[in-house]
Amino acid sequence: MPLKPIPALITRQRDPDNLESHFSALDGVLTPNDSFYVRSHFEAPVIDPGAWRLRIEGSVHRIVDLTLTDLRGMAAQTHTAVLECAGNGRLFLKPKKDGVQWELGAVGCARWKGVPLAAVLDRAGVQPGVIDVVLEGADSGTPEKADHPKAKITYSRSLPLSKARQPEVLLAYEMNGEPLTRAHGAPVRAIVPGWYAMASVKWLRRILLIDHRFQGFWQTVDYAYWSAHDGQPPEHVPISDIAVKSTIAQPAGNDRIAFGAPVRVFGAAWSAGAAITTVEVSVDDGKLWNAAKLIDEAHEHAWQRWEFVWRPDKPGRYTLRSRATDAAGNTQPAEHNKDHGGYIVHHTLPVVVEVE
Amino acid sequence: MPLKPIPALITRQRDPDNLESHFSALDGVLTPNDSFYVRSHFEAPVIDPGAWRLRIEGSVHRIVDLTLTDLRGMAAQTHTAVLECAGNGRLFLKPKKDGVQWELGAVGCARWKGVPLAAVLDRAGVQPGVIDVVLEGADSGTPEKADHPKAKITYSRSLPLSKARQPEVLLAYEMNGEPLTRAHGAPVRAIVPGWYAMASVKWLRRILLIDHRFQGFWQTVDYAYWSAHDGQPPEHVPISDIAVKSTIAQPAGNDRIAFGAPVRVFGAAWSAGAAITTVEVSVDDGKLWNAAKLIDEAHEHAWQRWEFVWRPDKPGRYTLRSRATDAAGNTQPAEHNKDHGGYIVHHTLPVVVEVE
Repeated sequence: MPLKPIPALITRQRDPDNLESHFSALDGVLTPNDSFYVRSHFEAPVIDPGAWRLRIEGSVHRIVDLTLTDLRGMAAQTHTAVLECAGNGRLFLKPKKDGVQWELGAVGCARWKGVPLAAVLDRAGVQPGVIDVVLEGADSGTPEKADHPKAKITYSRSLPLSKARQPEVLLAYEMNGEPLTRAHGAPVRAIVPGWYAMASVKWLRRILLIDHRFQGFWQTVDYAYWSAHDGQPPEHVPISDIAVKSTIAQPAGNDRIAFGAPVRVFGAAWSAGAAITTVEVSVDDGKLWNAAKLIDEAHEHAWQRWEFVWRPDKPGRYTLRSRATDAAGNTQPAEHNKDHGGYIVHHTLPVVVEVE
Repeated sequence: MPLKPIPALITRQRDPDNLESHFSALDGVLTPNDSFYVRSHFEAPVIDPGAWRLRIEGSVHRIVDLTLTDLRGMAAQTHTAVLECAGNGRLFLKPKKDGVQWELGAVGCARWKGVPLAAVLDRAGVQPGVIDVVLEGADSGTPEKADHPKAKITYSRSLPLSKARQPEVLLAYEMNGEPLTRAHGAPVRAIVPGWYAMASVKWLRRILLIDHRFQGFWQTVDYAYWSAHDGQPPEHVPISDIAVKSTIAQPAGNDRIAFGAPVRVFGAAWSAGAAITTVEVSVDDGKLWNAAKLIDEAHEHAWQRWEFVWRPDKPGRYTLRSRATDAAGNTQPAEHNKDHGGYIVHHTLPVVVEVE
């Protein structure tokens, strides 16, 4: 037992803050707000909720400026959804990839309350020919990569209009029943279930409708990879859908387990818009797989917890892995897809424990 | 007078070869083949014309493979058009920009004979929903920039379908009445009048029709720049249209001119798809401008030569500049647009001479 209380979050980077959950602390479906991971590109803006305005403009019939009172006055919806950083698990990659060295905990699941983006788009009126909906945050700065615009730029990411109109895409002002905190995008952030969280833009200040695929920094240079279709010229592909994944929360890596008693292998599994149908657990580094039990009901955007009771034959060193399959038939691969660079790390990750 | 003959081309880079014309050698409208600039990204492929095939595939009704005999059997067209490298004039930029240090001569004008791309697209049949036509060359390698696909890639660039269907866009096999040479893309290259020459793909081997804007290396990382619309999030913009430009061929920079006789200031001017209407010359570094005389008739895609007879008042050092305006009302600016980085260098360039 630690002599000092364990902080709720692991610091991966300061200024801007990038803080990771202890995935081993998984318990209920909802990740408590104070242990929900924090991903920041620049310093978190301090926004006066009373002065805050959200402007919807571009190819619209009328420019709309919303106050927080306006937004709270619109019909609200609540959705439970996983947010996962597109670089979660990067720490496992060899060779090492640039970027924040997330291990398992740049992911969490919360209940988000807000107004469907579709309702806000309807207020402004979408002109024919709109292709993309750009979500712009109030956070800004100069990216660290070599190829970036000269000026200080705001964090911006787009959704195709069809995705923006999905009913589960929210402009959220509450997280697990509490107002958003500054670290999580107060007063209002986007929540884009099914997509990696780079699309769930925090500190929203503008929604811009445009007639082409947005070619902003965070979907061309960053949060993008080179496709590798056989025989086709490679193309820059912006990251979007969450790939099917499961992670073992307990036991944690390097745990020492007393031989004799059954061991509860416990974790969560999630995918983009398709419920998890199967989770399997291997205790021999991926040779044999055993069916785990799904604890939670099938859900499109929340994760499902699962467990497997393991009875080790004998003391020794074991490499555990879990493998999820979703309703669309997607299964976790055994190896990282190198074409994805430092993103979409969803292969079956090893958890090494000692039974003694 | 030089003691040794001047080579027809200035070497800017070897392996791959990047060779520049002496712009001061401008004479007729057509640049002779052996003094036409050469731009290579990788080693020039050696292609057996008898074995060469051009495949048209992707979103087509039928895959088509053309031989050189097939192509020569189709109705040919001849167009006179300027080709200009998107980085022509980069040598003038301060601070220095990465890339080949072209001065004035990465530009030329030739008569191109070939088959309209539109006719070849019709053979394959364009499916509904096609957005881009990718032109792929046989030249390949690993780009030098930090952000590039891991594999060896072929030089590829796309045109929007509407541009690809323009009658002046050719699959050319002749240049000024002679078969294309290896350096210029033998046996067949694209000629895309009005666009910078990165789109006039050499050593064509494939035409690929796709349902989205192509996001290949040479239109995202390379041959692209960050837009800077006021108050809008910057976007990667692929370079396309040639900006209006004029260049002084004679006198050349650093020329010494005998005082007393009139001086013929002579050059060429061109723009993207709009004829040149006016060229002006300044002999006082851009303060006062004098109308030059257009020598050639208005032409959409060829350049127009121009001249101005200058009678210097007194001996001294003079900075000459020329400034063109096209039929669409575009005029050369006084300064380089820094947003364009090392591309689209079309401001009025200085030519410093001594009258003595």
